[in-house]
Amino acid sequence: MGMLYNHLADQLQTLIHEGVYREGERLPGVRVLSRQFGVSVSTILQAHQTLEGRGYLEARERSGYFVRLPRLDTPEPKMELTRAEPMPATAREMALELCSDERTRSVPLAAAIPHPDFLPVRQIQQATLWAARHGTEVLDYAFPGKAEFRRQIAQRMNGLGCLCTADDVLTTNGAQEAMILGLRSVTSPGDIVAIESPCFPGILQALEVVGLQVIEIPSHPTDGLSLEGLQLALEQWPVKACLVVTNHSNPLGAKLSDERKQALVTMLNAAGVPLIDDDIYGDLYFGDHRPRPAKAFDRSGNVIYCSSFSKTISPGLRLGWMLPGRYFPQAKQQKYFSNLATASLPQLAVSRFLEQGGYERYLRVARQQYRDAVERMRVAVGHAFPEGTAVSRPQGGFVLWVQLPVNVSGTQLYRKALEEGINIAPGRMFSISDKYENYLRLNAANPWTERVEFAIRRLGTLASEMLKGS
Amino acid sequence: MGMLYNHLADQLQTLIHEGVYREGERLPGVRVLSRQFGVSVSTILQAHQTLEGRGYLEARERSGYFVRLPRLDTPEPKMELTRAEPMPATAREMALELCSDERTRSVPLAAAIPHPDFLPVRQIQQATLWAARHGTEVLDYAFPGKAEFRRQIAQRMNGLGCLCTADDVLTTNGAQEAMILGLRSVTSPGDIVAIESPCFPGILQALEVVGLQVIEIPSHPTDGLSLEGLQLALEQWPVKACLVVTNHSNPLGAKLSDERKQALVTMLNAAGVPLIDDDIYGDLYFGDHRPRPAKAFDRSGNVIYCSSFSKTISPGLRLGWMLPGRYFPQAKQQKYFSNLATASLPQLAVSRFLEQGGYERYLRVARQQYRDAVERMRVAVGHAFPEGTAVSRPQGGFVLWVQLPVNVSGTQLYRKALEEGINIAPGRMFSISDKYENYLRLNAANPWTERVEFAIRRLGTLASEMLKGS
Repeated sequence: MGMLYNHLADQLQTLIHEGVYREGERLPGVRVLSRQFGVSVSTILQAHQTLEGRGYLEARERSGYFVRLPRLDTPEPKMELTRAEPMPATAREMALELCSDERTRSVPLAAAIPHPDFLPVRQIQQATLWAARHGTEVLDYAFPGKAEFRRQIAQRMNGLGCLCTADDVLTTNGAQEAMILGLRSVTSPGDIVAIESPCFPGILQALEVVGLQVIEIPSHPTDGLSLEGLQLALEQWPVKACLVVTNHSNPLGAKLSDERKQALVTMLNAAGVPLIDDDIYGDLYFGDHRPRPAKAFDRSGNVIYCSSFSKTISPGLRLGWMLPGRYFPQAKQQKYFSNLATASLPQLAVSRFLEQGGYERYLRVARQQYRDAVERMRVAVGHAFPEGTAVSRPQGGFVLWVQLPVNVSGTQLYRKALEEGINIAPGRMFSISDKYENYLRLNAANPWTERVEFAIRRLGTLASEMLKGS
Repeated sequence: MGMLYNHLADQLQTLIHEGVYREGERLPGVRVLSRQFGVSVSTILQAHQTLEGRGYLEARERSGYFVRLPRLDTPEPKMELTRAEPMPATAREMALELCSDERTRSVPLAAAIPHPDFLPVRQIQQATLWAARHGTEVLDYAFPGKAEFRRQIAQRMNGLGCLCTADDVLTTNGAQEAMILGLRSVTSPGDIVAIESPCFPGILQALEVVGLQVIEIPSHPTDGLSLEGLQLALEQWPVKACLVVTNHSNPLGAKLSDERKQALVTMLNAAGVPLIDDDIYGDLYFGDHRPRPAKAFDRSGNVIYCSSFSKTISPGLRLGWMLPGRYFPQAKQQKYFSNLATASLPQLAVSRFLEQGGYERYLRVARQQYRDAVERMRVAVGHAFPEGTAVSRPQGGFVLWVQLPVNVSGTQLYRKALEEGINIAPGRMFSISDKYENYLRLNAANPWTERVEFAIRRLGTLASEMLKGS
């Protein structure tokens, strides 16, 4: 689907790529293009702005739009091999620094938290007002979840190919808690869990809370988890669970294809190892279709599905859910023992939002925004950072994984940038071994302000200086 | 303080006790009493109804109110000794049964959850509407808590004698999570924690989640935890933490005096053992003054204070807080790793409610309601249950601890009652050893309906039958 102007921007971008319009050339005037494509002048202008954002056009005052070629040759990071030995899960202490009041104090490129501009603020406010008027319902204790919320989630999950009823859904305090409940349901402290590398720091934190060991499996920047690597680990170690972000992983943005998801589910089922399927970015795809979760290929109840609305509706709701499959009784007990239930009010508000169709309408716009924001930042990094830098090309989500030239330390860059009020996530946070020292992750879900633009240029300059000094 | 009619009811009750009005006598007419006490007729009528509820008066049609003596000689349970050996924490599986849809299906005398009639439904609804209008604020992610909520809590805590600032407060998903975060901050799996016996099942669940061992210390029905018992345990075992409900414990309703709180804090400080102080029932006192938390006697930061609004404002908000003292950094990290933050919306709504003074106004009424409800159920149990039954006389909160004659099994009574749609909490749930088999706990926070009245009578009949059959 997508917007008309965006479709047009894609077409113009193709024409630029194919040399119909060359670098430095002036684009035909808006009225000419309007006639040519049979669309309104304002659509043309929107398409121009989109392409400007992506780095393909440059506006010159009183002269119109000129073609430029973004450094499209900025390569993607390569797959890194991992040490094939389990180690206790330990999250880096930086994880906490990244989140303390960062929005008010610095340019928030570190945490994977969307700026409110990307969120359906007005809509969820309306839904909350509606929920608040529901009297005692909002004050009632809801274990294992508000009936209407569980029903709406069951509808969505069936739409994604996961056969289930409301009784299969457990409401959680975000996907983070869902993962922890899943891990506790199928492991004991000291057990080994297979994870992808690089890995979202929140997963390392969850594993540390439960007291688990991890074996890191290399993940391909586009195709995701190496199934060969996983097979080897399963043969070599008593792996008790496997935890994977199957759609638009964080930080890589990688996605497992349907075939690879099917193979993953089959392999783990054969090995008797439960799969914890974190689908938190699944709704933020850039392609034409919502990718299916691994859970859609689950026929034996061996997949524990986890997700939340923190990346799409609001992180402040702390509202997630899980489909624990055949581990439902264990997960339900763990939830009850941990904090009894999830707050009722956010569940009622989101049920209303889902039921009224607002979520789907919002997502159509949001996906475009996220896609544009990611592409814009990707281009900006390509221009600003030194030769030898590689940037991921995510197919969804809103983070970028940046590989710096080999001698440039992401941790040092993180510290230098922080002194200047720019907050980024250093690569070391994404592994329990000493990997990804020359990497960093950027959160692209921010309005493209001068402050952000400057921050990216400044990061590039700092990296260049560090490269020269090395 | 208290209401005028209640004060009057207390006076009349004293007069009955002192024999000024004897059992079976007719009380003077309302107009006579109105003149005598210098209060309105309607106040007299309210006092009569209150005394009727407490079991001291009986209304006879067209004849007025007659004095009766409730079985005030129903004794309180004695302190039970405990086995002085640590054992792994395991919560009884019944814990889950008690909470599944119980309200709709059976008479809810099991879980310690107040009926909505006891909660400030309309007020919190107003506060929620106000909060929902606050735009992005409600959607913002709040770690380690919404500033305004933490500030309001700091104000309240200072009012209770706990010197602190907003920075010392951590928002949690109820007191249950606060306890778990506290335990995780100061123990490792396998460590020994001292708890009171009988003990709230949620505490046993928390201890099981963290993988701890427990040593049970006997608790006196009125005075609370045996300090002598604790001292012995500290000398004998490597205790790593002590977890106590210091005000109106669940199930006993016991309260440690200020002197005993002071001694507890001093003893644990000397032993280098952190105290986890669960004050969830502190606001629901029946006496003249809010009892102080143990935290008020803490000078070294060794006390981890935990509480929530689940028993006063609403369980469905899932809103609690903690003052982790010198363990703040550990607790903060545990919170972040577990589920990042607590939902913003309930924090904003409750801040508003607190700031507007609504909470204190509500509490004044609620304390009276809880007190009446507890006394009414206490009297009803005394009338309905067989000779040899003892009932606690709580000074706050809303649960009753019932000791059955020694051969009557609380577990059997629980099962029989459940078949008849009456849900109670059997005594075995309140210990990890095989104690309290002839006990049960009743939730008194229900409107005194015919259904509840009948349920109490029926429980008494069942217990009597079991006694005869034994």
